[in-house]
Amino acid sequence: MKKAAVVGAAGYAGVEAVRILLGHPDFELTCITSSSDAGTPIAELYPALDGICELVFEEHDAQAVAAKADVAFLAVPHTASLAMTPALVEAGVQVVDLSADYRLADASVYEHWYGAKHTSLDLLAQAIYGLPELARDELKAGTPVVACPGCYPTASALATVPAIEAGIAADAPICIAALSGVSGAGRKASAKTHFCNADESVGLYGLPHRHTPEIAQTLSRAANREVEVIFTPHLVPMVRGLLATVYIPLAHEMSTEEVHAIYEKRYAGEPFVNLRPVGQMPQTAWVEGTNRAQVGVEVAPGNKMLIASCGIDNLVKGAAGQAVQAANLVCGFEETAGLDARMPVV
Amino acid sequence: MKKAAVVGAAGYAGVEAVRILLGHPDFELTCITSSSDAGTPIAELYPALDGICELVFEEHDAQAVAAKADVAFLAVPHTASLAMTPALVEAGVQVVDLSADYRLADASVYEHWYGAKHTSLDLLAQAIYGLPELARDELKAGTPVVACPGCYPTASALATVPAIEAGIAADAPICIAALSGVSGAGRKASAKTHFCNADESVGLYGLPHRHTPEIAQTLSRAANREVEVIFTPHLVPMVRGLLATVYIPLAHEMSTEEVHAIYEKRYAGEPFVNLRPVGQMPQTAWVEGTNRAQVGVEVAPGNKMLIASCGIDNLVKGAAGQAVQAANLVCGFEETAGLDARMPVV
Amino acid sequence: MKKAAVVGAAGYAGVEAVRILLGHPDFELTCITSSSDAGTPIAELYPALDGICELVFEEHDAQAVAAKADVAFLAVPHTASLAMTPALVEAGVQVVDLSADYRLADASVYEHWYGAKHTSLDLLAQAIYGLPELARDELKAGTPVVACPGCYPTASALATVPAIEAGIAADAPICIAALSGVSGAGRKASAKTHFCNADESVGLYGLPHRHTPEIAQTLSRAANREVEVIFTPHLVPMVRGLLATVYIPLAHEMSTEEVHAIYEKRYAGEPFVNLRPVGQMPQTAWVEGTNRAQVGVEVAPGNKMLIASCGIDNLVKGAAGQAVQAANLVCGFEETAGLDARMPVV
Amino acid sequence: MKKAAVVGAAGYAGVEAVRILLGHPDFELTCITSSSDAGTPIAELYPALDGICELVFEEHDAQAVAAKADVAFLAVPHTASLAMTPALVEAGVQVVDLSADYRLADASVYEHWYGAKHTSLDLLAQAIYGLPELARDELKAGTPVVACPGCYPTASALATVPAIEAGIAADAPICIAALSGVSGAGRKASAKTHFCNADESVGLYGLPHRHTPEIAQTLSRAANREVEVIFTPHLVPMVRGLLATVYIPLAHEMSTEEVHAIYEKRYAGEPFVNLRPVGQMPQTAWVEGTNRAQVGVEVAPGNKMLIASCGIDNLVKGAAGQAVQAANLVCGFEETAGLDARMPVV
Repeated sequence: MKKAAVVGAAGYAGVEAVRILLGHPDFELTCITSSSDAGTPIAELYPALDGICELVFEEHDAQAVAAKADVAFLAVPHTASLAMTPALVEAGVQVVDLSADYRLADASVYEHWYGAKHTSLDLLAQAIYGLPELARDELKAGTPVVACPGCYPTASALATVPAIEAGIAADAPICIAALSGVSGAGRKASAKTHFCNADESVGLYGLPHRHTPEIAQTLSRAANREVEVIFTPHLVPMVRGLLATVYIPLAHEMSTEEVHAIYEKRYAGEPFVNLRPVGQMPQTAWVEGTNRAQVGVEVAPGNKMLIASCGIDNLVKGAAGQAVQAANLVCGFEETAGLDARMPVV
Repeated sequence: MKKAAVVGAAGYAGVEAVRILLGHPDFELTCITSSSDAGTPIAELYPALDGICELVFEEHDAQAVAAKADVAFLAVPHTASLAMTPALVEAGVQVVDLSADYRLADASVYEHWYGAKHTSLDLLAQAIYGLPELARDELKAGTPVVACPGCYPTASALATVPAIEAGIAADAPICIAALSGVSGAGRKASAKTHFCNADESVGLYGLPHRHTPEIAQTLSRAANREVEVIFTPHLVPMVRGLLATVYIPLAHEMSTEEVHAIYEKRYAGEPFVNLRPVGQMPQTAWVEGTNRAQVGVEVAPGNKMLIASCGIDNLVKGAAGQAVQAANLVCGFEETAGLDARMPVV
Repeated sequence: MKKAAVVGAAGYAGVEAVRILLGHPDFELTCITSSSDAGTPIAELYPALDGICELVFEEHDAQAVAAKADVAFLAVPHTASLAMTPALVEAGVQVVDLSADYRLADASVYEHWYGAKHTSLDLLAQAIYGLPELARDELKAGTPVVACPGCYPTASALATVPAIEAGIAADAPICIAALSGVSGAGRKASAKTHFCNADESVGLYGLPHRHTPEIAQTLSRAANREVEVIFTPHLVPMVRGLLATVYIPLAHEMSTEEVHAIYEKRYAGEPFVNLRPVGQMPQTAWVEGTNRAQVGVEVAPGNKMLIASCGIDNLVKGAAGQAVQAANLVCGFEETAGLDARMPVV
Repeated sequence: MKKAAVVGAAGYAGVEAVRILLGHPDFELTCITSSSDAGTPIAELYPALDGICELVFEEHDAQAVAAKADVAFLAVPHTASLAMTPALVEAGVQVVDLSADYRLADASVYEHWYGAKHTSLDLLAQAIYGLPELARDELKAGTPVVACPGCYPTASALATVPAIEAGIAADAPICIAALSGVSGAGRKASAKTHFCNADESVGLYGLPHRHTPEIAQTLSRAANREVEVIFTPHLVPMVRGLLATVYIPLAHEMSTEEVHAIYEKRYAGEPFVNLRPVGQMPQTAWVEGTNRAQVGVEVAPGNKMLIASCGIDNLVKGAAGQAVQAANLVCGFEETAGLDARMPVV
């Protein structure tokens, strides 16, 4: 049993981490922080937790967190993690960072896309990119910082990596059409998240999107060559759920069945990846509330283009659930601990 | 540990029972039946269960169910339960019936509202109306049939009963405006459940509604007098969730605080009833996926009319969750067993 | 042909007035104002109008408005109209006010519910409450200010008035359960209007609601006695649409058919009121985008309680459309002018 | 003034044609047919039309239609048009066909994708593919059959054609990620269109999709070479709206501004195509209810891939509106006649 803190617990990824940790057999949630809501009981902000979680948001303080917790889940905006992580690590806290700050190995790429100086190069060099399906062996005790993948990169990678690892993808740009529910835009009220703008409408946004270099980094590592990525996210009218549909030019003509067999082998035994049968593509509702990713593959007529689609819950496998999955590995717990609650299927 | 069957497991209430029982520490789910989908794996109909539940729908047969299960949850349409329950009871199976067939003590009322002959009067006389907050002491071993309340009657009763039991309600008709998500209409595809009809629209339906006599029966029992009920359900564009807003004429002028104190006392210690503070009313999203009911009260200006509102998840506290809660009591398990999974709060 | 201005055109009711006036045969829209967005083309805020409306929001100024327009539609928050209307009237502009400022004949009631001093008592005495179905004869040239009804009062009145005028309602409190889409909460981004809070949830809000005295005033005038109103609005997950379901105790037992005949007679010839046949209740989608109200009636079993339900589009018949309807009357145009565009029915 | 019939008027595209024709200055709607609902007043099926359209669905009969109408809009499933069109043409009726039956010039391609024999080769050879932005000059009197484009092909073509015509697209496959609202699936109740399946979920469906060869045909004609198309539609939880996001490899590096200038020139003067400014992409809500298409372009980092996105209302520009636009041209009316009603923008 370890003690856990959630830093930035008032946001959507943060409260999802709270929710998961409350039901986790090996973590005890002892501390939640929020700069905007310090002093407020979490059950006041999220009445669903009334009678379930008595914690009150605190101001963040590294020493206070270290006094209460072994592991800190940071669900804060980018740059905020840069400001907090070094002190937490120094105080002996295991950091599991949901922000973008330690994801990009090349600090200059971070600085280009996020418009901020990277001030923690030492820890950046030690951070592990925490996509367990790709980095299970690296996620172990001694990793000071786990850099949890973004929501879009998670789904994009899980849809694409088996093809790339197997060498069936041509050396050509990979296009990704992604669709995200509105919770991906965060708790902040804005014109974009206003019900009357978000409901009954779809459209692209945020081009070029900051998750592009992160996806390219993951696919390039898997390919052992530079992979070019065209990434385009759409906002769709639902609360949760994220789908990445990836167009992968094939190096050689292949049938759907041949590609499916490669994916089946790659994901055999993966506790959180569910491959759909030939002829069926994932629906995001089928993974809602869970840490699962569903993947489907189909080769287009002509047998030269693979269409791979991956559905996840953006706040679970795309954020807090995956962070707990990685933390389980780093802490030596069962990888699935706390992540197997049965979710409604309708 | 007891073995459980879900009869009629392909419908929404049935699959919700499956979902809950899969995570229940004291029940082992051994058998699911469906007349329409016999032979089909449940994970084919509900891909969210792929890799989680390997069961295949069977044709219903009382002997087969009895051979596999100690308790049968019947999530079947009215009259179907009348046809199944006697044989199950005779075969020694504990029946927990989610249909309307054993809810109305007066068979003639059943026959009037449901347009069918009641053919199981003997068991009707022994059935217990399974709203645990009202009938906890009666729900014990030896009850052959638990008649689980309907979704609307559950929310209506929980909003109203404390006022009635405390004698603060006037002897006057009680009006109930209820709002239900579309899952309440069941899995059958119809014009009513077509997305293009149900989305972005609200309206009354099904007047006069069959749940009227059931609500009147519950309130009358609590009042020890005949309570007249005007019940009007609206369909609203959401999947889950049910709200009952009840207009209760007060016998004497009272303040919101006075009424709130009565409700607070009545529901103290209730594991699944959450009273909102003065000034706040329930939102159905705050109980989504859970077995909880949230209740709020407000006395209108003039201090003569109490507005009480109760929000539940129609498929959990309004159906499968409440059935499991009642079954826990009848089987001698913890009342909350299997019903405490942490649900997403965003 | 008259020239029209929309004051407060950046909000939802304002832009709806713009939309209607752009298609109006007898009004030319010459001026739009917005305190928050002055200097911005309306098509930038509402890209649907790109290429359709070239107007730019101006700062409000009574003289400037008077120089450009014969009629001003005020779609501003309460108290803002009090500050603007006298100068506009003095400058010779016909004011059609969509705010609450001139609706309540008794200034002390306004001051109690709106928490603000009424500073325009002279015009208040001359203002006409502009519900054309009740006040068609009063809406004529010479009225300096038309006080357009609120959205909830419009639907509540249209559902209730025929019963009250016919004397079939008992002298007892009338309860109203109303359901509104999120556009009723306005364009301002807030926690309440955030998609992730408003979607997939319903609940009561804003008790006691400010529209209560306005509804009571309308019903009391129709009854020639004090009518007590219990008014409870729910927020529901849709953009547009408003439903008022009204519980009207009957003075004497009546059948649905008898009540229906009364409503049929009352609304015969009304261009914007559509009575549903016996056995069918309105759906808000059936009036979306239009200035129509649909009304349905049903007497509950026992024949002592009338359930009347009225569906409108909150931004059209509940706001801008009704304002144009009233303006048409005051200006001597066809009552339906500009309000008969055919709207999508799916 | 010409007389118009809508054949298959009970479906969503059909009733949308009815809606538009009711407000059309140059067409008089005289006849509506429906095989499933013959004998039923349209206002019974669509209560929004109560008091607005008194027509009753008739059984289809070519002679009867010819006796009542000059122009017939066929909103029927594929193969049904093959069975109806020859007799209508022979009877002198101008056919505007919304089905797929006359869209594909190569009958063998039709037979491959639609699994049905093409039985009207003579008319197929004379049919004009009615995308007015591409075929305005061909849409004139004397065309016996106008083959109206599918919803996906319309948006895909409008997003892509300017790049192809300008010769800036490389000779490489073009991938299209499309998103459609549920009305695209038609009025038939099914598991797919059930609110509880369609709401709060997204996913690919129908791969490979029948609109693929139609899109390829249009793009190939514009390019004067064979263009390979990878087309992938997603179902998204909204009633109306369709977005096509197209990934177009560029022959040479170009900036967003250079591409935007090409699109601007191509669409100058087009009454129904609205190009968004650089930096903004279309939202489907911005064209809801209208016959407009909004197009946006953005070149991805690297300047080698053009992302073009087009939003339409699938039932208007994607079906009935475009059919009326084409009919206007064929009949010699103003191209925009009946298509300029002002639609709600919130």
